[in-house]
Amino acid sequence: MAAKLNLDKLDLQIIHEMMENAEISYAELGKKLFVSGGTIHVRIKKLQELSVVKGTKLHVDLKQLGYDVIAFIGIYLEKSSLYDSVARELQKIPEIVRLNYTTGNYSMFAEIVCKDINQLRFVLHDELQKIKGIERTETFISLDESLNRNVQVFKE
Amino acid sequence: MAAKLNLDKLDLQIIHEMMENAEISYAELGKKLFVSGGTIHVRIKKLQELSVVKGTKLHVDLKQLGYDVIAFIGIYLEKSSLYDSVARELQKIPEIVRLNYTTGNYSMFAEIVCKDINQLRFVLHDELQKIKGIERTETFISLDESLNRNVQVFKE
Amino acid sequence: MAAKLNLDKLDLQIIHEMMENAEISYAELGKKLFVSGGTIHVRIKKLQELSVVKGTKLHVDLKQLGYDVIAFIGIYLEKSSLYDSVARELQKIPEIVRLNYTTGNYSMFAEIVCKDINQLRFVLHDELQKIKGIERTETFISLDESLNRNVQVFKE
Amino acid sequence: MAAKLNLDKLDLQIIHEMMENAEISYAELGKKLFVSGGTIHVRIKKLQELSVVKGTKLHVDLKQLGYDVIAFIGIYLEKSSLYDSVARELQKIPEIVRLNYTTGNYSMFAEIVCKDINQLRFVLHDELQKIKGIERTETFISLDESLNRNVQVFKE
Amino acid sequence: MAAKLNLDKLDLQIIHEMMENAEISYAELGKKLFVSGGTIHVRIKKLQELSVVKGTKLHVDLKQLGYDVIAFIGIYLEKSSLYDSVARELQKIPEIVRLNYTTGNYSMFAEIVCKDINQLRFVLHDELQKIKGIERTETFISLDESLNRNVQVFKE
Amino acid sequence: MAAKLNLDKLDLQIIHEMMENAEISYAELGKKLFVSGGTIHVRIKKLQELSVVKGTKLHVDLKQLGYDVIAFIGIYLEKSSLYDSVARELQKIPEIVRLNYTTGNYSMFAEIVCKDINQLRFVLHDELQKIKGIERTETFISLDESLNRNVQVFKE
Amino acid sequence: MAAKLNLDKLDLQIIHEMMENAEISYAELGKKLFVSGGTIHVRIKKLQELSVVKGTKLHVDLKQLGYDVIAFIGIYLEKSSLYDSVARELQKIPEIVRLNYTTGNYSMFAEIVCKDINQLRFVLHDELQKIKGIERTETFISLDESLNRNVQVFKE
Amino acid sequence: MAAKLNLDKLDLQIIHEMMENAEISYAELGKKLFVSGGTIHVRIKKLQELSVVKGTKLHVDLKQLGYDVIAFIGIYLEKSSLYDSVARELQKIPEIVRLNYTTGNYSMFAEIVCKDINQLRFVLHDELQKIKGIERTETFISLDESLNRNVQVFKE
Repeated sequence: MAAKLNLDKLDLQIIHEMMENAEISYAELGKKLFVSGGTIHVRIKKLQELSVVKGTKLHVDLKQLGYDVIAFIGIYLEKSSLYDSVARELQKIPEIVRLNYTTGNYSMFAEIVCKDINQLRFVLHDELQKIKGIERTETFISLDESLNRNVQVFKE
Repeated sequence: MAAKLNLDKLDLQIIHEMMENAEISYAELGKKLFVSGGTIHVRIKKLQELSVVKGTKLHVDLKQLGYDVIAFIGIYLEKSSLYDSVARELQKIPEIVRLNYTTGNYSMFAEIVCKDINQLRFVLHDELQKIKGIERTETFISLDESLNRNVQVFKE
Repeated sequence: MAAKLNLDKLDLQIIHEMMENAEISYAELGKKLFVSGGTIHVRIKKLQELSVVKGTKLHVDLKQLGYDVIAFIGIYLEKSSLYDSVARELQKIPEIVRLNYTTGNYSMFAEIVCKDINQLRFVLHDELQKIKGIERTETFISLDESLNRNVQVFKE
Repeated sequence: MAAKLNLDKLDLQIIHEMMENAEISYAELGKKLFVSGGTIHVRIKKLQELSVVKGTKLHVDLKQLGYDVIAFIGIYLEKSSLYDSVARELQKIPEIVRLNYTTGNYSMFAEIVCKDINQLRFVLHDELQKIKGIERTETFISLDESLNRNVQVFKE
Repeated sequence: MAAKLNLDKLDLQIIHEMMENAEISYAELGKKLFVSGGTIHVRIKKLQELSVVKGTKLHVDLKQLGYDVIAFIGIYLEKSSLYDSVARELQKIPEIVRLNYTTGNYSMFAEIVCKDINQLRFVLHDELQKIKGIERTETFISLDESLNRNVQVFKE
Repeated sequence: MAAKLNLDKLDLQIIHEMMENAEISYAELGKKLFVSGGTIHVRIKKLQELSVVKGTKLHVDLKQLGYDVIAFIGIYLEKSSLYDSVARELQKIPEIVRLNYTTGNYSMFAEIVCKDINQLRFVLHDELQKIKGIERTETFISLDESLNRNVQVFKE
Repeated sequence: MAAKLNLDKLDLQIIHEMMENAEISYAELGKKLFVSGGTIHVRIKKLQELSVVKGTKLHVDLKQLGYDVIAFIGIYLEKSSLYDSVARELQKIPEIVRLNYTTGNYSMFAEIVCKDINQLRFVLHDELQKIKGIERTETFISLDESLNRNVQVFKE
Repeated sequence: MAAKLNLDKLDLQIIHEMMENAEISYAELGKKLFVSGGTIHVRIKKLQELSVVKGTKLHVDLKQLGYDVIAFIGIYLEKSSLYDSVARELQKIPEIVRLNYTTGNYSMFAEIVCKDINQLRFVLHDELQKIKGIERTETFISLDESLNRNVQVFKE
């Protein structure tokens, strides 16, 4: 379990704001939170040193880039003991963007992003099926994403 | 379906690089891709105008912030027609960070981020159970996340 | 159960040939089966009178017409007794091309043909969900159709 | 994905009419759609050249021919990778008229047409069971077909 | 639990023999078991008084009488509490020959004997569906009965 | 499928009566059905020659004999092709009184009669588990048998 | 989450020993753990004050007392929101000895201890079925308990 | 099945009281049940000789000791026949505190007690997965234990 850090209200407020918009200037953010831009700077440096903040990422609209199909795949293995070797093979498929080891029905639970149904068929039929140890898969295609947001680290 | 944009190799390379690290300077990124920093600037502006790039987001380590429990929740509704009203109620629960309408077993598929098992119990028992229209839920707790990455928009 | 008709080998051969290609001329078909075109004519008339042959249908390539998504939908009803009223509502949705009352898991089993995922989402979310009596649905999207042919009514 | 063709309203009207009844004469169909029989002829030729129209098929009443049992078969494979070889074997069984590779529970989804329960038992027990790679099958017998129609390619 | 009776080897031998063939004469059965016919008579009378033996039944070949379809039906109720009222309704359907209250998936488990698929459809669609309280049913059609015998009350 | 026999109302009435009670004398049954005892005799002989009637069986109260546990067992096989060999092994277990090859979830469906839970455990753990080819089993214990009767071959 | 206590090796050793056998005298236990009986006494008092140790319980062999049937019951509710009211009703049934609110398939998961199958049937049919809000239950009867032990709080 | 013992009301009362609290003195318990402390002593000795009472156990609050995660694990085996060898391996894992052989879905049903999700992941991924013969597991984490009590051996 992660070591618990002593973060105060201001730290959480900064994280909260910048998880939505990382382009805000330190001065502007400082004004919003009633502290100086310098304080923001110091705090962000601390959060980086604590490995809480790992950098910033471009926020891209995948639909605009032509990625129309998001699907979740429940994977059953032939034997439970093949988990690690199958996970290594799945990492080589670039369309697989997430892989969780979960309690419940499936041995593994993956998320896949594709341009269309044909690419999904290719990944499932030509790539997953060649991986030794996969017994069968169940695919849930996302028809709509009603919500996709950050966890709310600070509440007023 | 999204209108298809005519993006060239350089556009995709810029997106590819900045999805991993948005803090790179235009000059540095230009050097890496054998163009000027000014070209990078022009292209990013174009991508923003096309709504492909929506901004940058702080990349935070949730484990470091004490969020130890990630869970997926399959939700069965009493009646299929209650989807929209239940979705509206679920949006009010801040621990729910994602909500998909998927083909397959479940009426809805949600992702939840909590600090510990007690908070999960609270969300499931005290919040979800009060929502009119939910018949039952199946919760899959993520024991390990082997992979969580961006889709690879550019391949050499 | 259907009344059993006394069809001979020639009847079945004619049906067999014309299920693949109904445009063949009586003369040509007669030559192929070693009888006169007139005999073919007489037999087809008999088969029409017996209601075995119901006409001919244009054979269209749906993919070429832009229908990219074929899906099967298992439907669970709130109560078994709602079958007839739900079936009547489903008939009003033009994308639903087939509806079977089957033994096994589901109360009803439907086939749906759509142009894309968005149209599928519309049918499932905006049309099926409004039908009173449907508890939930499970959708299986066809990623590939390896086979789609007529039953073989005649074997050499 | 299929290349999208530029078909106009008249093309779709012709397809729509002839999917129900391909025996209508060009003259008659022209009268119905307020164009000449010659125009119909030209359009159908174009549709054939575009591979949209593939011919005509005899429409037969299978019940009248004694085919009383329609069943759907969900097939689970021993390993996902056996899909192609099992598909090849299934194609050799003439009672199997359709085979889809679908998302969801089953590795494969087949449709079978038989004269009676005994023939179904023969196909399942004596033919499917001999195919190497099939773990188990689930059979859904159609008790009633409430609907079986073409997709509606043209709406007023 | 039933009161345990003190039955000896001869009692069990008599039951064992007559469960297969009740037409054997007391004299013949006595000879087979090395006792007098009178002894057999006395024992059977005792077994009747103890309510172990309840009479004899005609053994009929249902297939010969045209009953081609044996099916098992798992029944899910809307509420568990409706068991008794649904059971009373099911008893009124003559095609239902057995009804068990079992642990496991289903609320109730029934066996049904029909002449053909059409009669099965009638019972499921027109009779079961009218019973208030049945949510849905799963039907397993018996394709073959490999074994149907009495429990072996006596082993050498 | 069984050859259909031409049985008249009287034949069915006789079968109907004797399926409930085979001990009735021909004279008595004749009186009940308004024919002579001799007619009954002739008809039963005919029914035996047609293999409709196969004899009589002792009707025993299994509970009184100490058989307290009736269970249904759904059997999943490792491979579908092992059906016949597993069926042969199951026949050797005397507690298994019925074995059906059914459509639906399970590869095989068996009925078992035991004296108590310990005998059931013995059969499942020590006998079924030794049979090569069984992947797993699901056992449904009958808590109550609300109905167990003959199909009604004759209706007024 | 429980406040974490600072327990040392000796505390855990004492708990470990007494979870198996609470009748050991302080002197004897002290000898075993190389401390005085007085030290044991002090430590146990501390553990009681910390609410780690709550007392001792008689260890009884339920089989010897005639409790032959242990079963686990997965409970599905009509609506998720009925959890608390159903839990209150279940507490009134003395045969139910444990009740957990778990992730996964079931709304609730209960354990039940009965003298025989008839008592189990009574609890399921006459008691559980009367509770408003239970949709259906799945019962798993324990055929054998291979293991039932304490968690090992101390490892050498 | 256990031999039935002739225990009277007082025996059951003593067991009933001491299953809740084994620390009560014989004198005190005698007063409560209107008998002498000596009688209590004699009866307990008898119950020990009959192996009904097996000793006393320390009652510990596992939450206080830091055991936050209780989970139930349904285990599917590759083959039914591997039950005994897998059971032997599971006994070596100290976190597994209970193991039942049950009717229903799973081949085996286990209970596991862990300090946190990470320990659970370790047991599932690093220990269970190494056991030869386990096909897959389903884990149900207990979010709340509403009830955990002894069976009530005596009712007023």
